[in-house]
Amino acid sequence: MSKSSNNKILLSHGSGGKLSHDLIRNVFIKYFNNDVLTQQTDSAILDLIEGNLAFTTDSYVVDPVFFPGGDIGKLSVCGTINDLAVSGAEPLYLSSSFIIEEGFSIKDLETIVKSMADEAKKAGIKIVAGDTKVVDRGKCDKIFINTSGIGFLDPERKNISTGDKIQVGDKIIINGSIGDHGIAILAARESLHFKLDLESDCASLHHLIGEVLSISSGVKFMRDATRGGLATVLSELAENREYGIDLEETAIPVKENVKGTCEIFGFDPLYMANEGKVVMVVGNSDEKGIIDVLKRNPLGKDSAVIGEIVDSHHGQVALQTEVGGRRIVDMLVGEQLPRIC
Amino acid sequence: MSKSSNNKILLSHGSGGKLSHDLIRNVFIKYFNNDVLTQQTDSAILDLIEGNLAFTTDSYVVDPVFFPGGDIGKLSVCGTINDLAVSGAEPLYLSSSFIIEEGFSIKDLETIVKSMADEAKKAGIKIVAGDTKVVDRGKCDKIFINTSGIGFLDPERKNISTGDKIQVGDKIIINGSIGDHGIAILAARESLHFKLDLESDCASLHHLIGEVLSISSGVKFMRDATRGGLATVLSELAENREYGIDLEETAIPVKENVKGTCEIFGFDPLYMANEGKVVMVVGNSDEKGIIDVLKRNPLGKDSAVIGEIVDSHHGQVALQTEVGGRRIVDMLVGEQLPRIC
Repeated sequence: MSKSSNNKILLSHGSGGKLSHDLIRNVFIKYFNNDVLTQQTDSAILDLIEGNLAFTTDSYVVDPVFFPGGDIGKLSVCGTINDLAVSGAEPLYLSSSFIIEEGFSIKDLETIVKSMADEAKKAGIKIVAGDTKVVDRGKCDKIFINTSGIGFLDPERKNISTGDKIQVGDKIIINGSIGDHGIAILAARESLHFKLDLESDCASLHHLIGEVLSISSGVKFMRDATRGGLATVLSELAENREYGIDLEETAIPVKENVKGTCEIFGFDPLYMANEGKVVMVVGNSDEKGIIDVLKRNPLGKDSAVIGEIVDSHHGQVALQTEVGGRRIVDMLVGEQLPRIC
Repeated sequence: MSKSSNNKILLSHGSGGKLSHDLIRNVFIKYFNNDVLTQQTDSAILDLIEGNLAFTTDSYVVDPVFFPGGDIGKLSVCGTINDLAVSGAEPLYLSSSFIIEEGFSIKDLETIVKSMADEAKKAGIKIVAGDTKVVDRGKCDKIFINTSGIGFLDPERKNISTGDKIQVGDKIIINGSIGDHGIAILAARESLHFKLDLESDCASLHHLIGEVLSISSGVKFMRDATRGGLATVLSELAENREYGIDLEETAIPVKENVKGTCEIFGFDPLYMANEGKVVMVVGNSDEKGIIDVLKRNPLGKDSAVIGEIVDSHHGQVALQTEVGGRRIVDMLVGEQLPRIC
């Protein structure tokens, strides 16, 4: 581990940024080392009789549990569905496992579970396995939920999660504005709690993604821009590759109140968490048709082409800024806002 | 929910006993309601191309994290493997998801992860997906781990998890002494911490179970006796059935120091948690062959026939006690010892 970590787990180890990567590489991959895990794809792709399965897991510890646009239950279903969908898989089954603090309100639990059920129904997937643990008061913060998911993966789409087919000239698309989830959570925090006309973008994206995949074979890579935001997704993608990424700041949709709140708190929207945003890399001639399809769905109405794969600054992401400058966009170091998901 | 619960989550909601059942029925099944989940089998059985998958999830919150005979990492791998194995499935893949308290020692994390890797290797399964969240100090207790698992299920073994083929005259087998895990955890608790020559029985049972299934088709039901212990497994099995269960107290293996510690604390070994014990219901003429196979494996050397399916006291478990009495064994009500797994 890096010396700066001082051998203690820091909040940054869970941020999806630099220290998370160190931890994954230096601890988990080191020991768990196997050919599926080392691919580090969003869902594990499992070889199994007559087809492929995608398998993924996520624990949700968001604070507060209820926020504008969703709650921990909805988030836990959408988040795991999205992990499967961005792998090119069709989500089929979820498990759900609860760790609940003694004294937590059962009414609130029912609200959360109902959110999960509603979202699962809407998404057309089944929650098929579960577990509940309760810990003494003060030993966890209200409720944590793990969901794991299984999806069916068409073998022809195995390349989407690795991004192996990406080439210079490919375009980068996002399906709408960034930072909504992060800022909605920030505004809902007990310690701050300011009014903002903003909801989390928390949503299941697999119908939207399905519509794109059904009309185009030009999708070469997808990733949901959650913890660490758009910047981290693209930095990860560029890392160790024989190409660079150019991003156009003016092309990236950001709501005015998200931009304003970020300025006040000194946050960068590029690093803010999203829970309903997919970043796609698509073939050079495919972007128009794909944008058209995306815009027809409410979850993609603000879709935009925001950048391009280029043959310079290999391994790095460069941002053409609004004011005409140019800066390198790195992975998130440290933690902008803990417990965002 | 029952009135006594006072609309708050109690530790007993996570005990695997009566209140857990209420919560599952009144909250989770109510909302998640689907044909797979309502089977309430240990693993969800998924219909998928040319075969069946078993899918299961469990979160582990054991306190202390390190205990004689294992740690939370080993437990999280064995526990989920066992959930798959008792469904008659061959465990293939696990996911692992960590919720870690800020300040937790990375050295301890490595020890835990290494335990998981060692156990996975020994068991011949792969950990293929993962996630890490970190929460602020004081917002969880050191480390919680979720593992979810997928296994391949031979369609001919689909009846094992439902127990539909059980009939009067069938025998009940356990592969060794009960209560070792529960008492080992109790003795290791910071607040007590007394010396006892005892280790948790924490172990992956799927090789042992595989050996039995390969020589006999007489296994009609299996369940690992974890939270809630042997009593809860059998009470659940008998519930609403057209048969009863007779248990022979003198036939049930219990170590002397487990028995003694239970007496001091007022616990009943029948309800103590195990992490390496499988309860099998087997055909009337099959028990001898199966016991022979079990005894050849170190994990089954103390196997014993401990009871029988009978055509009386339908829906209930009756224990023939050591002193010649007879009592009904009910599901665990309340909580003997929280955070046992």
